[in-house]
Amino acid sequence: MDPLMPTEPRYARRADGMKASEIRELLKVLNRPGIISFGGGIPDPVLFPADEAKEAYRAILTDPVQMACGLQYSVSEGFEPLREWIAQHMGLLGVPCKPDNIVITSGSQQALEFLGKLFLTEGDTAIVEAPTYLGALQAFSAYEPHYDTITPKHGNRTPQSYVEAAAKQGGSVKFLYVVPDFANPSGETLTRAQREGLLDLAGELDAPIFEDTAYSALRFEGETVPCIQAIDVARHGGDINRSRVIYCGTFSKTLTPGLRIGWVCAAEPIVRRVVLIKQASDLNTSNINQMVMHRLAERTYTTQVEKARALYRPRRDAMHEALLKHMPAGVTWTKPEGGLFIWLTLPPHFNGSKLLKRAVEEFNVAFVPGSAFFAGGAGANTIRLSYSLPTEAQIADGVARLGKLLAS
Amino acid sequence: MDPLMPTEPRYARRADGMKASEIRELLKVLNRPGIISFGGGIPDPVLFPADEAKEAYRAILTDPVQMACGLQYSVSEGFEPLREWIAQHMGLLGVPCKPDNIVITSGSQQALEFLGKLFLTEGDTAIVEAPTYLGALQAFSAYEPHYDTITPKHGNRTPQSYVEAAAKQGGSVKFLYVVPDFANPSGETLTRAQREGLLDLAGELDAPIFEDTAYSALRFEGETVPCIQAIDVARHGGDINRSRVIYCGTFSKTLTPGLRIGWVCAAEPIVRRVVLIKQASDLNTSNINQMVMHRLAERTYTTQVEKARALYRPRRDAMHEALLKHMPAGVTWTKPEGGLFIWLTLPPHFNGSKLLKRAVEEFNVAFVPGSAFFAGGAGANTIRLSYSLPTEAQIADGVARLGKLLAS
Repeated sequence: MDPLMPTEPRYARRADGMKASEIRELLKVLNRPGIISFGGGIPDPVLFPADEAKEAYRAILTDPVQMACGLQYSVSEGFEPLREWIAQHMGLLGVPCKPDNIVITSGSQQALEFLGKLFLTEGDTAIVEAPTYLGALQAFSAYEPHYDTITPKHGNRTPQSYVEAAAKQGGSVKFLYVVPDFANPSGETLTRAQREGLLDLAGELDAPIFEDTAYSALRFEGETVPCIQAIDVARHGGDINRSRVIYCGTFSKTLTPGLRIGWVCAAEPIVRRVVLIKQASDLNTSNINQMVMHRLAERTYTTQVEKARALYRPRRDAMHEALLKHMPAGVTWTKPEGGLFIWLTLPPHFNGSKLLKRAVEEFNVAFVPGSAFFAGGAGANTIRLSYSLPTEAQIADGVARLGKLLAS
Repeated sequence: MDPLMPTEPRYARRADGMKASEIRELLKVLNRPGIISFGGGIPDPVLFPADEAKEAYRAILTDPVQMACGLQYSVSEGFEPLREWIAQHMGLLGVPCKPDNIVITSGSQQALEFLGKLFLTEGDTAIVEAPTYLGALQAFSAYEPHYDTITPKHGNRTPQSYVEAAAKQGGSVKFLYVVPDFANPSGETLTRAQREGLLDLAGELDAPIFEDTAYSALRFEGETVPCIQAIDVARHGGDINRSRVIYCGTFSKTLTPGLRIGWVCAAEPIVRRVVLIKQASDLNTSNINQMVMHRLAERTYTTQVEKARALYRPRRDAMHEALLKHMPAGVTWTKPEGGLFIWLTLPPHFNGSKLLKRAVEEFNVAFVPGSAFFAGGAGANTIRLSYSLPTEAQIADGVARLGKLLAS
C-alpha cells in the first residue's frame, strides 16, 4: 500500500459518481473568454440579495448574544426560527405542518444523500425518472441501489412489475424519486393527474416518494400544480404525519446557493431519523448562515422569487425563439413553464458527448450531454440547455452556433 | 405504512448513533439557570473573532466579484486560497504538501463520515481507542463496522491478532482512528514512541490511520509532539503521496465552529476520492464561509490560538486543583497538557449514567458519562469533564458539588 489506497474502496465502484464528476470537470474549464455556456444550471448572481445578506451578517455579528449563537455549534435539526418560517411556507404550499416536520440540510443535495442513506441497502431498487437529476443519482449511488424507471408522462408500469423487477435484483423498491416542476433536466412539469398516479403507485408499492422541488418556485406562466406532498396530505385528512411524501426544498434557486441551506419536510418519524443522520454527518449546518437565511427569507423571499421569474422568463423565450430559428429538422425540445432548462432530442445518429467536445473546441458553446441524466446510460442523442446565466443576446448567438454545429 | 416508515431503515439499527444522540439530548436541557455544566466540549464564545468575521463578510459582500463567488455554488474540493493557506499550515506542522492534498469539509465531523463511507463495507473492522470521540463512532457506525481496540498507551496487540479478530467477523481491518493530542475524551497525548508504534502496526496491517487533530493546537505546556502524519511523511522521504496517514483538521476549536470548516490532508488519490464523496454529499461547503475563514486564518490564527490557550489553561488548573480538594479516595483523573477535557475514573461501584441523573436533579451540575465513549459499552465508572465553558469560580463550585454527589 504505497501510495496508500483503500484496498476495497466502496465509493470508487460507483460509476455514476465518476461520470457526473467528469462532466462537471469538463464544464469547469468553460470560463474562458468568448464561450457561451448553456452548461451549469446555476442561478444568475445578479439576483443574489447581497445587500440584505451583508446587513444580516452585520446585525447578527454586532449583537453579542446572536454572535455567540451564530458562531457556535448548534442543534442538528436546525435553527428554530428558520424551521418555523419554512413550516409556515409549507403551509402556503398546501402542507400544514410544524417545525418538528422540518430538518435543515446543507442544500437539498444533502437531503437526497441522507435519504439514500436512510432507505437503501445494497441490492435495493430506487425508482427514478429517465432522464433525472444527476446529483440525485450520485447521492443514491453511494448506497448501490439498482435503478428502475417511472415514466409518469406516458403512464407507469403495473406495481406488480416493479415489485418483480426489484425482487429479481435481490431486493425491494425503497422509494420513488421525482422532480415534479420544470424538472432538471427535462424542463417538464407533472400534471395533477400524473401526481395522483404516482401517489397511487407508491401506495401500491408501500414506498415513499422523494419530491425534489428545487425549481418549483420559478413558474413563469400557467397554473400552479399542487406539490405531491400537498395532494397526499389532503388524502390523509391534512395530517402530514400520515404522508408518504418526503419533500426536499432549497433556497438555492430562489435566494442563494452560497449559504447551503435546504430542508426536508416529512412525517415526524422520518424527520427524527434524518436528524440523527445529520448529527453523525456534520453535526449541524452553519448556524450563522441559517440565521442569515432566516432574515433573507422573511424579508426578501417574495420579491426575490418575482425578480428571478422576471429575469429567467425572457431568457427562456429567447432560447425557444432561437431554437425555432436555428435547429434543423428532426430536432425537438421541451418548452418549460418555468425553471432553468430546455431539453433537446436530436435525430438518433447524433451523440451529445461527442458533440460537446466539438461544440467547445470549434464553436465556443457548451451544454450538458443528456446521457449524464440516465441511470442506465440511454439518451445519447439528447442534450440539456440552461438559459439561467447567458443574456438574451448570448442565447441567440449560442443557439445559432449550436445550429451550425448540428448542420456541419 | 401509515404513518410512513422505512420498512428496513439502515440507520435505525445503529446503536451508537442513538446512544450519543440521547446523551446530547440530555445535555441540551442544561441551559437552565444555576446549573454548572462540564458537559459539551465546545469553545467559549468570548474567543470568537466576531469583529474580524463581520469585517470579512462585509468586505466580501461589498465587492461584486467576491460577492458573486461567495453566494454561488463552488467546486467540491474547496476555496483555492483556503486550501493554499491550509497546505502552508500543514507545512509548518511538518507535512510538506500542496493544495491538491487538501479537501475542505464541513467540520472534521464530515471528514470522519466521508472516510467511513470511503473505507467501510459492512462486516469490516475499524480500530479505535477505548474511550474515543463518540462523534467518530456515530460517523463510522453508519457503515456498520465491527470495532476493535488499540491501547497505544499500554502497548497494542500483535498485528496478527487484529487480522484474526477481523477475519472472525467476516471482514478485514480497514483503518485505525486516533485523537493523538489531548484526546476527547481522555485528555491524553500520545508520545512520539507511541505514534511510531501505531505507524508500525498500521504498516503491518496495511491500513490507513485517521488522525483527528481537533485539539492539537491547544497545548498549554510541555513539548509539542509531531503529528503522526509528519512522522510518516518523514519516513517516506517527505512525500505525502506515499503516506498512509489521513489527517483530519478543523478550525472549530481555534477560530469558530459556526462556519463549519474543516479539512482532510492526505495523499492525492485519497483526496480525489473524498472530493467525489463531497460532491455527491452536499456539492460544496458554503463558499462565503470558506472565504471568510480564509481571511480569519490569515489574519488571526496565531493570536486566536494564543488567546484560547491563555483562557483554557487556568480553567484546567482550576479543575485539577478542585479535584485534588474534593474528590474522595479511589477517584483518579488525567492531567491534560492541553485541550478541553479531564477524564475521571471512579471506584468500580459507581455508574456515570446514573450519577448524571442525580447530578443534574440534585446538585445542579452536569458532565458526560464515560460509557458513551466506548464502542463496546465499557467504562461505566468513568466520566468526562470539560472545562471549556465555566469560569474558574464555577469550576471550583461545580467540582465541589461533584464531590458531594460522590460522597452522598
